[in-house]
Amino acid sequence: MRELWLVGIGTGNPGHVTLEGQQALREAAVVLIPRKGTAKEDLAELRHAILRAAGAEARVLHFDMPERDPSLPYAARVDAWHDEIALRWQQALEGAPEGPVALLVWGDPGLYDSTLRIAARLPEAPKLRVIPGITALQALTSAHAIPFNQINGAVQVTTGRRLRDEGWPEGVGTLFVMLDGECSFQSLPPEGLHIWWGGFLGMPEQILDQGPLAEAAPRIVAARAEARARHGWIMDTYLLRRD
Amino acid sequence: MRELWLVGIGTGNPGHVTLEGQQALREAAVVLIPRKGTAKEDLAELRHAILRAAGAEARVLHFDMPERDPSLPYAARVDAWHDEIALRWQQALEGAPEGPVALLVWGDPGLYDSTLRIAARLPEAPKLRVIPGITALQALTSAHAIPFNQINGAVQVTTGRRLRDEGWPEGVGTLFVMLDGECSFQSLPPEGLHIWWGGFLGMPEQILDQGPLAEAAPRIVAARAEARARHGWIMDTYLLRRD
Repeated sequence: MRELWLVGIGTGNPGHVTLEGQQALREAAVVLIPRKGTAKEDLAELRHAILRAAGAEARVLHFDMPERDPSLPYAARVDAWHDEIALRWQQALEGAPEGPVALLVWGDPGLYDSTLRIAARLPEAPKLRVIPGITALQALTSAHAIPFNQINGAVQVTTGRRLRDEGWPEGVGTLFVMLDGECSFQSLPPEGLHIWWGGFLGMPEQILDQGPLAEAAPRIVAARAEARARHGWIMDTYLLRRD
Repeated sequence: MRELWLVGIGTGNPGHVTLEGQQALREAAVVLIPRKGTAKEDLAELRHAILRAAGAEARVLHFDMPERDPSLPYAARVDAWHDEIALRWQQALEGAPEGPVALLVWGDPGLYDSTLRIAARLPEAPKLRVIPGITALQALTSAHAIPFNQINGAVQVTTGRRLRDEGWPEGVGTLFVMLDGECSFQSLPPEGLHIWWGGFLGMPEQILDQGPLAEAAPRIVAARAEARARHGWIMDTYLLRRD
């Protein structure tokens, strides 16, 4: 049985890597890295920089990320895509050296990430080890130097899709929105809401904005579009809080 | 204006410290450490071990954590306690060397932690820098090798007090409960719920359990009481998910 180590590497700042993560990368026999697809060129280079900084001497194997099939409905599309990625891991690992295989996972392997679900599809179940990493939640709140929660308050972590479909969830003072390519905060009545937003969190390109939602929303929409056009991609996230 | 660096150190595993956190501890002029009170002896020693591992040469200053006044109502009690801690920081820093002051914060400085709120009470507002750390959220999900969220699912992070008062929040598939000294999962109808629980996450004493809530709840209550009696204290947290 293969050991598969999922190493959370944080949100793009090589300093987000933990000591435990560095040691795992040094001890792994093989590191599996996506060549392209969802992994942008900048991110592929970041992974190599993290391996160099760790002094990793593992065999680095690459696999090509498959495309998602846009003709399938959402759940089936994700399902088929995960199957295909698991197959490509297997192919990349054919003839690889014995020993633990490490995957560098953006953020934390548990939070809005597919790696655990893909690993569950491997025909021979690997022995899993998960090494936690800094998530976008902490990268955002630390960049703004704000607390995640109000005192004894509840925080809901949700997706842009759910925010558009369901609006502000009942009984929650703070809403943290991930996977939002459409600035879905625009779907909310802005009265009484404050937003803290961040793009490229932890990276040299990091951009931040915050303010009452009514004032900040158009600024953020414009800044996001401009940054996305300039870099060719963007990763961003935000926290909304009721006054 | 003083620089105040809040360094998230994770949940008790020295390997949770990030490279950025280590570097900040090396560059700080002063490190402020609570001598006793909420910081148990084990945790004080962990802080010193983290400083040694970082090669920190900062002046280490101690302050005594005040007691909370049980005669005050909840909000006023927390308020007065934060004021008193801010005062003790000031006293400890009188005559301290120039340069950045670092505080080692359990978990992440943003998540159910008071350090940011205490810093806001200092009479001379410091220049804040927040360095994110591994939280109990990631320590728990990585120890169990489970995802935090379901696909496109919402997760609510809440407290034991709120769970007892309000029950299961509407529209949420996953509930993450913190600050629960009373095993408040016992207040829920257990049908259709699964629990993943962890105590002393990341530490050598780590204990884990998981299962359908109806079966696992009595086991967890017993294990928690036993571990607490043996160690004199416990830190634990859990995630609940609807089938």
